[in-house]
Amino acid sequence: MSVLLEFSITPLDKGESVGKYVARSIDLVDKSGIDYQLGPMGTSIEGEWDDVMAVVKKCFDEMKRDCRRISVAMKADYREGASNRIRGKVESVEKRLGHPVKK
Amino acid sequence: MSVLLEFSITPLDKGESVGKYVARSIDLVDKSGIDYQLGPMGTSIEGEWDDVMAVVKKCFDEMKRDCRRISVAMKADYREGASNRIRGKVESVEKRLGHPVKK
Amino acid sequence: MSVLLEFSITPLDKGESVGKYVARSIDLVDKSGIDYQLGPMGTSIEGEWDDVMAVVKKCFDEMKRDCRRISVAMKADYREGASNRIRGKVESVEKRLGHPVKK
Amino acid sequence: MSVLLEFSITPLDKGESVGKYVARSIDLVDKSGIDYQLGPMGTSIEGEWDDVMAVVKKCFDEMKRDCRRISVAMKADYREGASNRIRGKVESVEKRLGHPVKK
Repeated sequence: MSVLLEFSITPLDKGESVGKYVARSIDLVDKSGIDYQLGPMGTSIEGEWDDVMAVVKKCFDEMKRDCRRISVAMKADYREGASNRIRGKVESVEKRLGHPVKK
Repeated sequence: MSVLLEFSITPLDKGESVGKYVARSIDLVDKSGIDYQLGPMGTSIEGEWDDVMAVVKKCFDEMKRDCRRISVAMKADYREGASNRIRGKVESVEKRLGHPVKK
Repeated sequence: MSVLLEFSITPLDKGESVGKYVARSIDLVDKSGIDYQLGPMGTSIEGEWDDVMAVVKKCFDEMKRDCRRISVAMKADYREGASNRIRGKVESVEKRLGHPVKK
Repeated sequence: MSVLLEFSITPLDKGESVGKYVARSIDLVDKSGIDYQLGPMGTSIEGEWDDVMAVVKKCFDEMKRDCRRISVAMKADYREGASNRIRGKVESVEKRLGHPVKK
């Protein structure tokens, strides 16, 4: 019954270089124990709705400590009975195509 | 300290017409008491992070009752010390432009 | 065959107040002649794919003139044979619910 | 002057399993020659605005051939003077953290 969620969280008041704040979020995700995968435009995490949202909130609360304006984008995909989709979806595309893709 | 969040929640397994499921979500938002505004591509709600997320979860749980695959898109905008941005942001654009916009 | 698209375009290197840049985009949308509706979290526009994308690009090009880092979020909804969904989708929800909603 | 764009394109009228349509899009991306990376929730591509948008449009046009309702989500990140961010952004997070992340 788990959910796959990609999110990104970005401060708007820290100038064009926001890597320091992004790294702080990823560190929280990494230490949370949730299954995740970092991509160029966001981090995908997988788990129960409440667990997934708790990770996003932790990142948001951390960023609020020293950022005055924050933008959060989230996209969730739920599929009944499915699991390990964080790797499975890409593998399934490769199986259909019959060859590996860039990932 | 409130957050402005736009969200849309859509079943993928109900065919091209999903209005019945969308209406059910809006009904939940409307009855929740949270400040909201319905637009053509999503519903904006404003409040504390936990309150806003509780509304989204209620809509998700309701949709899970009879939908097997669900897509949720969310975009949040937090600004320290700001409030009533659900109307204020559009009014602020109109003030800057010096004329009303379509809304 | 038209597409309904909501977009927002935000500079990351201009500090927490980005209203000036947002207003400049809305002005371009307003003058473009495309059907649009401004909401608290984005602007919805409706038209053929190329026309809709030309408006987004115009806003992006304008912002690039004096912004070094820009974030663009877009969400499109295409439905064969449908039109005037920029107002029609909300009206359809109200019809289903049997009462007006906040919009 | 290139843009990093993540997109996903999904039919709503084909039931809960949409892998066939997703694979068709990825095949188009793969054959387009654009630099890309497939993730669990979307495909990131990098290039000039027009080139990136041409790839998305190709996928959309292909899907329109046999799908009646289509949802497209896109998120773009532009940074003046930056390039190869499709790999560089994740590497930069790892460098800051001082250890590899799941990717």
